[in-house]
Amino acid sequence: MQAANRIGYQTVEYRTQPWIAAAASVVGPREGKGPLGNMFDLVAQAADFGQESYEQAEAAILREACRICLSKANIGEKSVQAMVGGDLLNQIMASSLAARALKVPFLGLYGACSTMAEGLLVGGMLCDGGYASPVLCCAGSHYATAERQYRYPLEYGNQRSMAAQWTVTGAGVSMLSSPGSLETKPMAKLTRGCIGRVVDMGVNDANNMGAAMAPSAAATLCAYFDDTGDAPDSFDRIITGDLGAVGSELMLEWCQKMGHPLPRERMMDCGLAIFHPSQDSHAGGSGCGCSASVLSAYILPRLQRGEWKRVLFMATGALMSPTTSQQGETIPGVAHAVVLEEVQA
Amino acid sequence: MQAANRIGYQTVEYRTQPWIAAAASVVGPREGKGPLGNMFDLVAQAADFGQESYEQAEAAILREACRICLSKANIGEKSVQAMVGGDLLNQIMASSLAARALKVPFLGLYGACSTMAEGLLVGGMLCDGGYASPVLCCAGSHYATAERQYRYPLEYGNQRSMAAQWTVTGAGVSMLSSPGSLETKPMAKLTRGCIGRVVDMGVNDANNMGAAMAPSAAATLCAYFDDTGDAPDSFDRIITGDLGAVGSELMLEWCQKMGHPLPRERMMDCGLAIFHPSQDSHAGGSGCGCSASVLSAYILPRLQRGEWKRVLFMATGALMSPTTSQQGETIPGVAHAVVLEEVQA
Repeated sequence: MQAANRIGYQTVEYRTQPWIAAAASVVGPREGKGPLGNMFDLVAQAADFGQESYEQAEAAILREACRICLSKANIGEKSVQAMVGGDLLNQIMASSLAARALKVPFLGLYGACSTMAEGLLVGGMLCDGGYASPVLCCAGSHYATAERQYRYPLEYGNQRSMAAQWTVTGAGVSMLSSPGSLETKPMAKLTRGCIGRVVDMGVNDANNMGAAMAPSAAATLCAYFDDTGDAPDSFDRIITGDLGAVGSELMLEWCQKMGHPLPRERMMDCGLAIFHPSQDSHAGGSGCGCSASVLSAYILPRLQRGEWKRVLFMATGALMSPTTSQQGETIPGVAHAVVLEEVQA
Repeated sequence: MQAANRIGYQTVEYRTQPWIAAAASVVGPREGKGPLGNMFDLVAQAADFGQESYEQAEAAILREACRICLSKANIGEKSVQAMVGGDLLNQIMASSLAARALKVPFLGLYGACSTMAEGLLVGGMLCDGGYASPVLCCAGSHYATAERQYRYPLEYGNQRSMAAQWTVTGAGVSMLSSPGSLETKPMAKLTRGCIGRVVDMGVNDANNMGAAMAPSAAATLCAYFDDTGDAPDSFDRIITGDLGAVGSELMLEWCQKMGHPLPRERMMDCGLAIFHPSQDSHAGGSGCGCSASVLSAYILPRLQRGEWKRVLFMATGALMSPTTSQQGETIPGVAHAVVLEEVQA
């Protein structure tokens, strides 16, 4: 093993344990009516966020979440040494436009709905390795832009399958920094990360992304356990990004088969947490903005208050494109994970 | 300044000076007929690379370049600790499909045509920071998929403007590793990187990407000089990715205005190097695969042979999407740079 901070085939260790010094979330009106509604920093009055197009709204939501995060960390844009992130729009336009407004050094990522975890994973290496601090890690998505791009424009009034998930309109931002370098009360610290592999079990239904992503989620989780010797009960919660109702069950089955049975009571899926069942979102929420906004609004505050000591945060992405799907290609999945722990005073 | 390896607002230093242990390139038939034709590892007989679609061809070309690079480094896929890279296809499908075939830990990047430099920049931090070694850094593009996605399907027989560039069909892969950890004769070492900012001077012509990218190229170059005290004559060559004929001239003008005049005789643009003028490519080559394949086939071998001692390799990306362009949005640019030096025996 050449790499000093590598502790297994897919897992890295962050020796300095970078802090999440601040976090912010901005969501759309539908998310504001969900169970976590009062926990988000800002709930938009309308899905267009006062912009001329939904694409511009998606960029504005992400930009606003970055600005709120900077304000919470009490620093200006000039202090940010790197912004890492992405979104679901073609050519990650929302993040690019947000980065244009902020004028900070920017590294664009794409991991579909796994982007928030990929951002923390990469941002953690930048921060822990001494290349950048603070680092703004961000991800966002928008229901209207995602439906048009990946499925059908909303105006078609297309009927949704019961396995379909509802792309979250929202963004989440986490500010990573060297421990103690910012004056905020830290929300959590980043101790490990697990880089996902692309896994494809042959699912080709763009309306059942949970099924496409579940095998990659199980693969990353089992790799993490094998690499570290940790067990599921090493965590207060094992949190998945947006597997939804179908994908969450499938992941439990895959992990069982792979020799790492998971305890249901410790599992949480951001896609299942963000909407009430009565909101008719079928299999749950999805999109980069789902796990990103739930992380900022719900998960990090629980770690900050000490209600949870240690969680595994794993976001999963369905690496699909309408073009390759139309050509008969199946949907590969990828899942990246990070370990977040309480910072003790 | 919190970050130990940061030497300015945008520039990082790689203290261990990771090696590019091996590199590989695969290109299409048109690139094979260009001035660098006999330097590429593999020239495809046909643009479809024997696949059923150009998208599948793009993925196959990238995958093949990775396999040749692994073979040159004399290691198997299982030894690769991270693959970082991307392409121009929506949802970076070519890279995702290549990563699926290779089964290695994968971090998807998107920086448009700047992706190869972004990959070396991020891969360098992973390697230098001790998180992964070896790291496969890759980027690729395909003329037929890019034209269809960003402009018009080839079947339309659309007339090209003289400022238009020709997207390169090809891929380039570099294998970064901790110095001395692989048994190859290294091609070069990575000593510094400069993270670009998103810059937009209001260009909105998708057929003149050189003009859209030139300001961001100048911004990164001037930031690097300001951060480090280096001057243009600190390098044997300052190599841009694919500014082409129009963008290269504009970058010279911008740099002059910004107080960092550049010597023409030390400049090189991969987009101008890859095709003969008689190949009627108008303003030159472009696409992630342009700078990636020229790096592997032409730049790294010159560093390996000691003909150049030190070069700045900067690739530029036009962060455009057809959707936002149709909505009247201008085209932001980004440019990332790395410093590559001869490894002395």
